[in-house]
Amino acid sequence: MGRYFIEIQYNGTNYHGWQIQENANTVQAEINKALSTFLQEEIMVMGCGRTDTGVHAKEFFAHFDTAKTFENDFLTYKLNCLLPKDISCKNIFNVQDDLHARFSATSRTYEYWITPTKNPFLTEYAYFFPQQLNIHLMNDAAKLLIQQTDFSCFSKSNTDTLTNNCNITFAEWQKTDEKLIFTITADRFLRNMVRAIVGTLLEIGQEKLTKNDLQQIIASKNRSEAGVSVPAHGLYLTKVTYPTF
Amino acid sequence: MGRYFIEIQYNGTNYHGWQIQENANTVQAEINKALSTFLQEEIMVMGCGRTDTGVHAKEFFAHFDTAKTFENDFLTYKLNCLLPKDISCKNIFNVQDDLHARFSATSRTYEYWITPTKNPFLTEYAYFFPQQLNIHLMNDAAKLLIQQTDFSCFSKSNTDTLTNNCNITFAEWQKTDEKLIFTITADRFLRNMVRAIVGTLLEIGQEKLTKNDLQQIIASKNRSEAGVSVPAHGLYLTKVTYPTF
Repeated sequence: MGRYFIEIQYNGTNYHGWQIQENANTVQAEINKALSTFLQEEIMVMGCGRTDTGVHAKEFFAHFDTAKTFENDFLTYKLNCLLPKDISCKNIFNVQDDLHARFSATSRTYEYWITPTKNPFLTEYAYFFPQQLNIHLMNDAAKLLIQQTDFSCFSKSNTDTLTNNCNITFAEWQKTDEKLIFTITADRFLRNMVRAIVGTLLEIGQEKLTKNDLQQIIASKNRSEAGVSVPAHGLYLTKVTYPTF
Repeated sequence: MGRYFIEIQYNGTNYHGWQIQENANTVQAEINKALSTFLQEEIMVMGCGRTDTGVHAKEFFAHFDTAKTFENDFLTYKLNCLLPKDISCKNIFNVQDDLHARFSATSRTYEYWITPTKNPFLTEYAYFFPQQLNIHLMNDAAKLLIQQTDFSCFSKSNTDTLTNNCNITFAEWQKTDEKLIFTITADRFLRNMVRAIVGTLLEIGQEKLTKNDLQQIIASKNRSEAGVSVPAHGLYLTKVTYPTF
């Protein structure tokens, strides 16, 4: 038996997220189907995380086990033929047997894209948010996130996670020609956490909330205190790291 | 009566091109509808050109006349509310009465986007063309276009144009991180011309045709000699110039 990592990208617009479920189009189901077709055995991949409906991934890893042998580049090529056009396979490679796509990941990075002007080419790719924003205030508040650990205030209630502790190592807004991009890196994220953080930082950018309010929201550990979640279509999983790559 | 120019952008994916037609979704129909709604009179805009089904525009101008008065910025804002999300209004401005969006334009620039790798985020925006291409040969052949005037070989047959003469002033391929972009500027273009030129240059890039073959194709003035047209979704109208702007 060998363990393989598959590196993919997907446009989440037409998917009910990563995780396989009854009667819904999911990325995991497409990957399972393509791999099972090629390898002629039932393959069930394990993903590095569970992106929600509409969320995109510029870098996503999953693992699977098989005793079959194949040429990695040829399987990559074949998968791209078998997979729909909104999912691409970048790479397939052999890893040690205990490397787990989800549990071995040491950090995840997300980006959230905002377009301040109506842009016909970003309708599926960025959140159109025309209000004036003070990026300096948003970046100042974002720094606060790095010093915290308990993010219960940004967690969807009733999830089955054992802890709401996350170690955020990077959180920053950057302005490009067309977009405002928020980049955040942590060892782990709670469900809906990035979109709730972005929603709260947008309120700070509009001067409806202050950095002190954010401090209090985090201290409250209460989801209802934080800002509303921003839409899924602006969110991208962009990087996942493992001990060896 | 005053004449106004409206500057728009659109994602052509869901439109049967610019020009209004029975029983089809067109950009012109959407612009007419939005302007007529706001101005409370029937407005019929004249576009700078007629993009085909699926072709995009990063810069497109149209003109209309009205005796009504309005604040240009306010109308721009209102149009963006009235127009679908895949059409945006960038600007509206008063021009001299005889400036015509189509006939006064002195040059048009198109870009054609190719993605050499399967890219889930460019499915609507670039032509996926994985074959190896020799860009040096393509650029060398593109230079030839600048010295020609009669482009009958790249014209759709049975069009009602009086002449097939065009003055191409720029034609060049450039490589970016993710894409190969062909940029071409001329005083005018024949119907389907850019897509036929790109299709022919791709054959040169694959070394199926030579620069000399291109010379002969142009001399033949026969559309059936040239390469096949590439798909519409990689094509963008990106710049239109007028004597005064």
